[in-house]
Amino acid sequence: MQLYQRWRPLLLVLRLPGLQAYKLRTLHEASMPTPPHWLVERLGLFEKLWAVQVTRLASTARKEARTIKVSLPGGQKVDAVAWNTTPYQLARQMSSTLADTALAAEVNGESYDLERPLETDSDLRFLTFDSPEGKSVLWHSSAHILGAAAEQFLGAVLCRGPSTDRGFYHDFFLGKERCGTLVDLCRGPHLRHAGQIGGLKLLAEQELFFFHELSPGSCFFLPRGTRVYNALVAFIRAEYARRGFSEVKTPTVFSVKLWKQSGHWGHYRENIFALQPKGSDPARHPTETLALKPMNCPAHCLMFAHRPRSWRELPVRLADFGALHRAEASGGLGGLTRLWRFQQDDAHIFCAPEQLQAEIRGCLDFLCSVYAVLGFSFSLSLSTRPSSFLGEPRLWDHAEQVLQQALEESGEPWALKPGDGAFYGPKIDVHLQDALGRPHQCGTIQLDFQLPMRFNLQYKGQAGALERPVLIHRAVLGSVERLLAVLTESCGGKWPLWLSPFQVAVIPVGTEQEEYAREIQQSLQAAGLASDLDTDPGLTLSRKVRRAQLTHYNFQFVVGQKEQSKRTVNIRTRDNRRLGEWDLTAAVQRLLELQNARVSNAEEVF
Amino acid sequence: MQLYQRWRPLLLVLRLPGLQAYKLRTLHEASMPTPPHWLVERLGLFEKLWAVQVTRLASTARKEARTIKVSLPGGQKVDAVAWNTTPYQLARQMSSTLADTALAAEVNGESYDLERPLETDSDLRFLTFDSPEGKSVLWHSSAHILGAAAEQFLGAVLCRGPSTDRGFYHDFFLGKERCGTLVDLCRGPHLRHAGQIGGLKLLAEQELFFFHELSPGSCFFLPRGTRVYNALVAFIRAEYARRGFSEVKTPTVFSVKLWKQSGHWGHYRENIFALQPKGSDPARHPTETLALKPMNCPAHCLMFAHRPRSWRELPVRLADFGALHRAEASGGLGGLTRLWRFQQDDAHIFCAPEQLQAEIRGCLDFLCSVYAVLGFSFSLSLSTRPSSFLGEPRLWDHAEQVLQQALEESGEPWALKPGDGAFYGPKIDVHLQDALGRPHQCGTIQLDFQLPMRFNLQYKGQAGALERPVLIHRAVLGSVERLLAVLTESCGGKWPLWLSPFQVAVIPVGTEQEEYAREIQQSLQAAGLASDLDTDPGLTLSRKVRRAQLTHYNFQFVVGQKEQSKRTVNIRTRDNRRLGEWDLTAAVQRLLELQNARVSNAEEVF
Repeated sequence: MQLYQRWRPLLLVLRLPGLQAYKLRTLHEASMPTPPHWLVERLGLFEKLWAVQVTRLASTARKEARTIKVSLPGGQKVDAVAWNTTPYQLARQMSSTLADTALAAEVNGESYDLERPLETDSDLRFLTFDSPEGKSVLWHSSAHILGAAAEQFLGAVLCRGPSTDRGFYHDFFLGKERCGTLVDLCRGPHLRHAGQIGGLKLLAEQELFFFHELSPGSCFFLPRGTRVYNALVAFIRAEYARRGFSEVKTPTVFSVKLWKQSGHWGHYRENIFALQPKGSDPARHPTETLALKPMNCPAHCLMFAHRPRSWRELPVRLADFGALHRAEASGGLGGLTRLWRFQQDDAHIFCAPEQLQAEIRGCLDFLCSVYAVLGFSFSLSLSTRPSSFLGEPRLWDHAEQVLQQALEESGEPWALKPGDGAFYGPKIDVHLQDALGRPHQCGTIQLDFQLPMRFNLQYKGQAGALERPVLIHRAVLGSVERLLAVLTESCGGKWPLWLSPFQVAVIPVGTEQEEYAREIQQSLQAAGLASDLDTDPGLTLSRKVRRAQLTHYNFQFVVGQKEQSKRTVNIRTRDNRRLGEWDLTAAVQRLLELQNARVSNAEEVF
Repeated sequence: MQLYQRWRPLLLVLRLPGLQAYKLRTLHEASMPTPPHWLVERLGLFEKLWAVQVTRLASTARKEARTIKVSLPGGQKVDAVAWNTTPYQLARQMSSTLADTALAAEVNGESYDLERPLETDSDLRFLTFDSPEGKSVLWHSSAHILGAAAEQFLGAVLCRGPSTDRGFYHDFFLGKERCGTLVDLCRGPHLRHAGQIGGLKLLAEQELFFFHELSPGSCFFLPRGTRVYNALVAFIRAEYARRGFSEVKTPTVFSVKLWKQSGHWGHYRENIFALQPKGSDPARHPTETLALKPMNCPAHCLMFAHRPRSWRELPVRLADFGALHRAEASGGLGGLTRLWRFQQDDAHIFCAPEQLQAEIRGCLDFLCSVYAVLGFSFSLSLSTRPSSFLGEPRLWDHAEQVLQQALEESGEPWALKPGDGAFYGPKIDVHLQDALGRPHQCGTIQLDFQLPMRFNLQYKGQAGALERPVLIHRAVLGSVERLLAVLTESCGGKWPLWLSPFQVAVIPVGTEQEEYAREIQQSLQAAGLASDLDTDPGLTLSRKVRRAQLTHYNFQFVVGQKEQSKRTVNIRTRDNRRLGEWDLTAAVQRLLELQNARVSNAEEVF
């Protein structure tokens, strides 16, 4: 519990589960609540067990003390005392650098804290950050620090806090729910002290979003988060325009008749939020049960069917950013990655069977080019006909061939998952990896032979007869909320210009330039660029620039007397590159160009 | 019922209630359903009553025939025969022009059909389109034609179909609901025959949106409607950037605890859609009751309150386009103008009392400038403290003075509505007039002294003490759906370029230019311009241009061999102005400029 004392004075900004953004400064400054009774009990229990352990260890050390042999890396052998000599003592004997960089030890194949006494003859090696095991130890202890800080400063209730291949995170709950009566009975090993960690990457002063117990499972996007959200949506909209998709807007609430017709009421009912069938005034409310849509496809089927269609119109590609609600089990809710309410970059393509190949190819191209802009690595998989499939085997065979061929043409690696398709059609799944190495299922391309039948979708074919279209469900981002979470982790607060809620910090050199600086900030804002003004009189110019850079403003516009008189700005980047003096209008224009081009490195190519 | 026969062959596109857009051509071509039994009964009743009336009139004419005196306009007096001579006969005696242009007569102050025999000595004047009464007669009969056509071709059930100061409309229902057992017992007067109407203004082949019984009270926006919708939202977003508003995204579903805290549960409960408290699987659903938000303000209060605020941050202006749901009585639902589901350009300003004046001035300026771009006329009213107000009289006095002063400074005419404010604050209401002269309450600026108390909103004032902000609710468009309806009526299908879902029709002269034309259409589309390609081989060039102009495409890009070889386009406007040959890239650029400038007359200033 020493950690609490040691970390309390620090301004921590932490990676929170699912990347909830919290302004710890504020919370830290707020008065600490009285610790809950279970925390007091836990601390008491810990002190008691610790005292027992110390006594027992001392007694064993007295009784079992004898010379043992320790084999060190490189073949060296040294003598040590059982139940007394620690790996840390041996490391110090070897070199002070090793003693400083060693994070834990491996003793006869078992992980040891550096301070844990050896018990018998031992093969010993030290774990440093250079090895995967060493990384894992550092990150594991870091997760504990994170958990401790979250518990102390946020009143969080801790859940899992593992290390991963690339770092660590900690899941915890910020509302009233408890993860049972968890006491962290961790098997270690741990670092000798928290100082070895150095400092946690600061991530979340960005004020992107928050959660509130009055709207469980839904996210509140603050202005900056909304900006990122809207930038993602605008990106996909621009792609829709280029790729012949038509955006539509469909209702949120539908009669359950629709979900019965689509089959969701049968297979998915427990995830659907239904409305109370009658309000207090029956005249105002329908007599039938309504429900919040968990997906857009049935609404798009109604739209396709609302008038006769001709083969000339196909493919019809309907895209929808409508809010979806799915009743996930509370335990399944996790920050932005699993919500009750979310939006998708959801589209449904209604096409003739002979158009399938071109459409799938188009979908894969869409996926690859969006992920390239976002800088994500991803893997593809093809899931084929399960044993309990519905539909004609001939159609399945054809569709699977089409998907396979499109995958091969894409040049991306892909894996086959035989029998893993849905009963209504084969699919291509896309898995992203986030910055912590966690996989996320985001994009999907999914064929559906069933919905067109359930909604009796038809078009007049070239020969004049009515034919049945094939339906493709597809999403590139998948849930916009989840993708935003993955992105936030990926860029660690350093947003590319086009997504950034911190594009420009305008910094006047003196108070005389405040008016001009304000004017600049307003021009940037009016041009749709996210900018803030720093007129803090308590800071020097260099401190203000440094602060802006630490906040990861892509650019800083510094204005002194000269810039004011010439209506120019002096530009620096967040990596402190000096771009020199620019005409204000030209600078704004250049930023807009770079924003619209969605380049990942605007600071370098400005 | 003759009207049915007479109008059946025409392709009618009609103003539908609340501006539902229907593609009548499609419906017309579809086979007619068997008439419902009540229509058969009604026709039978009409024929029976009509026969009785004809017999009775003939008998009266025989019995009551006698010479009467008729005073005509200008003082002329003529003899006529009671129960025999009609106003139409007299009009023909006076001039054939009068007989053709007279729409009805006024006889001893009473409105007469032209074919209704005079009964006694009469002062008679003829009603033509030049007089308000004449217009009213034409429009009233037109509404009947509209209703008849809607009944015949759309299977509509008729409700009210009045004339207004500027035209006419007809409300009717297109689902299963019936307006009782309405038979149109209209008191007239009517035109002599439908031919006098000439033709109804064609409005609705635009495929903007539709309604469906599986989602009552909600609108499905088709691709073109979504385009208009998104253009309106983008317009307001651009204004938000200029005016320092921050867009946020808040959840759709909240615990009823929130609505209890805000007071809506007490005052507005019957309009709130609540969710079933438990689904089939209790683990997935909350134990408390959740409800769909009818307004955004409480969510914005949570957002303001989610961390401590300082006077330096004020005013905080939070804007939200979130979907709202309000349980209106079914009878109150009316196309786009009254829905269960809609979105607002809703914003809430949290400011210090001393900032009120500047904020209200800003709100009025926002309103006026948006309405100027949209070309609307509007009127303002100030509603002041009701007898049952809550809060401090001093604060009310100050606020009312601020509102009044801002209204006076705006230079717009405004009316005082003493005592008409809400109990929680005074307000400014804005009334638009649509193309049919119907008033719509759209924009609003509303002070609220209560919500900041209910949510205990505070900020640290300049002196260091905690102070209470004032809340301003404000909307410019109001419901985006309703505004879209008003706009659709106003522009009668001829959208200004920036809102238009029909911006450019690309027309190849021959099949050899189809490829080039397709390329142009795709460039336009990728640039975010709404364009369509007309490759119909069955039409001549001039017919295709004419068709595009009738569909109100703002511009037609015609491409022949010459244009193809030079990569140019030949441009015409929907009013058939010829703008000549333009370089393709320059033309696209010019369209984007005009679109972004949101000019109302892009075709004139291109």
